[in-house]
Amino acid sequence: MTAEIICVGTELLLGDIVNTNAQFLSRELAELGISVLHQHVIGDNPGRLAELVRQGAARSELLVFSGGLGPTEDDLTKETVAGVFGDTLHFDEEEWQKILAFFARTGRRPTPNNRKQAMVPTRGHKLPNAHGTAPGAWFEMPGCVAVLLPGVPREMKAMWAEDVRPALEARQNCTIRSRTLRVLGGESSIASKVAPLFESENPTAAIYCKTGESEIRVTARAAGAAEAEAACDARIAEFRRILGPNAYDVDVPGLEYTVVRVLKERGLHAATAESCTGGLVAEKITSVPGASEVFGFGFVTYAESAKSRLLGVDPALIERYNVVSGPVAVAMAYGALDASGADLAIGITGLAGPGGALPGKPVGTVYLAGADARSGRAYLMRLKLGGYRERSIIRTRAALYALDLLRRMALDLPTEEALAVPDRRTPPETLDV
Amino acid sequence: MTAEIICVGTELLLGDIVNTNAQFLSRELAELGISVLHQHVIGDNPGRLAELVRQGAARSELLVFSGGLGPTEDDLTKETVAGVFGDTLHFDEEEWQKILAFFARTGRRPTPNNRKQAMVPTRGHKLPNAHGTAPGAWFEMPGCVAVLLPGVPREMKAMWAEDVRPALEARQNCTIRSRTLRVLGGESSIASKVAPLFESENPTAAIYCKTGESEIRVTARAAGAAEAEAACDARIAEFRRILGPNAYDVDVPGLEYTVVRVLKERGLHAATAESCTGGLVAEKITSVPGASEVFGFGFVTYAESAKSRLLGVDPALIERYNVVSGPVAVAMAYGALDASGADLAIGITGLAGPGGALPGKPVGTVYLAGADARSGRAYLMRLKLGGYRERSIIRTRAALYALDLLRRMALDLPTEEALAVPDRRTPPETLDV
Repeated sequence: MTAEIICVGTELLLGDIVNTNAQFLSRELAELGISVLHQHVIGDNPGRLAELVRQGAARSELLVFSGGLGPTEDDLTKETVAGVFGDTLHFDEEEWQKILAFFARTGRRPTPNNRKQAMVPTRGHKLPNAHGTAPGAWFEMPGCVAVLLPGVPREMKAMWAEDVRPALEARQNCTIRSRTLRVLGGESSIASKVAPLFESENPTAAIYCKTGESEIRVTARAAGAAEAEAACDARIAEFRRILGPNAYDVDVPGLEYTVVRVLKERGLHAATAESCTGGLVAEKITSVPGASEVFGFGFVTYAESAKSRLLGVDPALIERYNVVSGPVAVAMAYGALDASGADLAIGITGLAGPGGALPGKPVGTVYLAGADARSGRAYLMRLKLGGYRERSIIRTRAALYALDLLRRMALDLPTEEALAVPDRRTPPETLDV
Repeated sequence: MTAEIICVGTELLLGDIVNTNAQFLSRELAELGISVLHQHVIGDNPGRLAELVRQGAARSELLVFSGGLGPTEDDLTKETVAGVFGDTLHFDEEEWQKILAFFARTGRRPTPNNRKQAMVPTRGHKLPNAHGTAPGAWFEMPGCVAVLLPGVPREMKAMWAEDVRPALEARQNCTIRSRTLRVLGGESSIASKVAPLFESENPTAAIYCKTGESEIRVTARAAGAAEAEAACDARIAEFRRILGPNAYDVDVPGLEYTVVRVLKERGLHAATAESCTGGLVAEKITSVPGASEVFGFGFVTYAESAKSRLLGVDPALIERYNVVSGPVAVAMAYGALDASGADLAIGITGLAGPGGALPGKPVGTVYLAGADARSGRAYLMRLKLGGYRERSIIRTRAALYALDLLRRMALDLPTEEALAVPDRRTPPETLDV
């Protein structure tokens, strides 16, 4: 089967946003064994859109649209595709009631324009949208199917997974399953270790680079679901054998989910003391449903006085070693244990930039400490994140290291890169690294 | 001038990478006042590519390509475009010497295929590449220019800035400027109030929906920069007159930047006491460079005991009104003032879900309080965010309300939706809303 992806939106043509929808849809279609020959981005212009739809329908078997289903007069994707596909739209009372209920739930009022969103295909069918107001649409003509999805990525992805992908799988006569292994570290360092595994044709494997980590997506085709899943699991196990503990979890949205799960399994509580990350680690942990079972206290000690007053960090220590230093990070982590009664705590102090570089401590220097109340031990890392330049990336990478340190402390995994601090009486000069 | 962007690369069609080149080029062209009507992604297939180039050349004045200039046999972009544009390619000894030198510097050997990269347009001209091996190409035919750039973003961007953008600026006889107004509230509620302003052709205005807020981008064309900027400013002022204080700032990445600026201007410090948002408000404030001038203390009091120990919230108050309640939110805000010495503080307690609903308090119920040390007053809002369902959206929206409350307190703007709390001795039962 051949396909084209058509993303409708002026904000894409103006470069206001990057087209992540096209990437998502391309990857999904590739997994289904459907060849994407074209991606297009086009604005809300019915003439140009109709021309593109006619061309696409003449040469490809599937057209997947995202965007252009909004309530404004410009949003004409549904009308235009219906025209080319020889279909019509009619008002759907059930969708209208859903739209009214959505507005009522969110305390807003629909405008008359919103009625447009309740128009659905007559010969084709609607695609329900459980996450927003606009239903999608499915049109067919001889030799071509058109699938219309909203542009909001969250809504588009949910509708794809719930309705479109299963329908396409059924047409492809096979079952496809994927698993995603998450691995700390950059793509090139990972890819070189596991290169032969990427050459396999079934299961396939592809690597995607994220900030500070990578995703390895394994996809297997088989006659049935159980068989496809077993093939994925076996391949994931091979990756984990080679990559070791940096391969931290499968099918999770991020490391914070793994941290919360591991803390729950071990019956541990964690606390955070953050300076340069400003609450990012606490925010990530508490973004996980049920985090309250493992996390109760977070300290955002952005000011020096906050480090002293909330965490008991000795002002003389700050005076002597500077607030961005190993001794202060360790004192913050121990202080967070004391102030919270948690089992594990992390302390982070660093220079996220753009200003503030110190002699010998350029922007991107981050001290990360973890303290473990069970053993009395602490761990200290000096991170050099300056190469990433951007404040947000320095903070995100520092937070990822902090979450990983929590995970490793909880699992009693070796933390080779960290300096082990035997106990609280360790002389601060030995921590001034 | 009208343009199309054509990105050539199988890795884009497979969804292996996201198309950031298209975003970069679109934004640059928009700034030059060149209307991008289409973006395309296509693989290394000469037939399909030639068809697309013929269509593009027939309807648009500029085609900007990225990718397909590599040394392999599949890389046929230059040859294909030359064919459609009635031009030929010839071997360029100077480029070949540069390629040999580049390989020598990086310790590699060129293959015979690399000679392909030294082929340059005969009637058109080459575009030098100081950062890689492949020069770009510039082709012209009556009514259309084609610019070919490499796919590697760093090389493409450098060549764009050094050669292509100046050449296109010289061809454009006008100057374009844009300004972006940020407005709290959803697209449909805003659009209906200011619809006539979106119909203007110069300046143009477009609205983009974000979580809990919208961006209005105003773009003006004029003979000179000052004139274009003045036209933007005048139109932005009209929007602000109609939209009032919900239109919070111009050309800022987000509300947290406005909050930090306003606090700095007023010489105020803020503190945060967060339960359900788990540090998100502190994280947003500290994401702004220079936030340390206005923010020193953040409390993530996820556990009840944290609210009592860090913020002095009376456990009896929690016992009586529940931890998710108006009296507790107000006590958290006052407690954060005391524990930090800040001028303004916010307290947030709520149910972000998915579990945890209470009788009369469904998921999405969030109590937000702000306390002002200058007046002794506090403000209390009960937010109903359950309609958004997702934990992350409930938290993001609650954080946005909290930032807005800080902004309004700092600016002494009326907060109509909030209950005014005269002082700390206000009986808690009056806050149980």
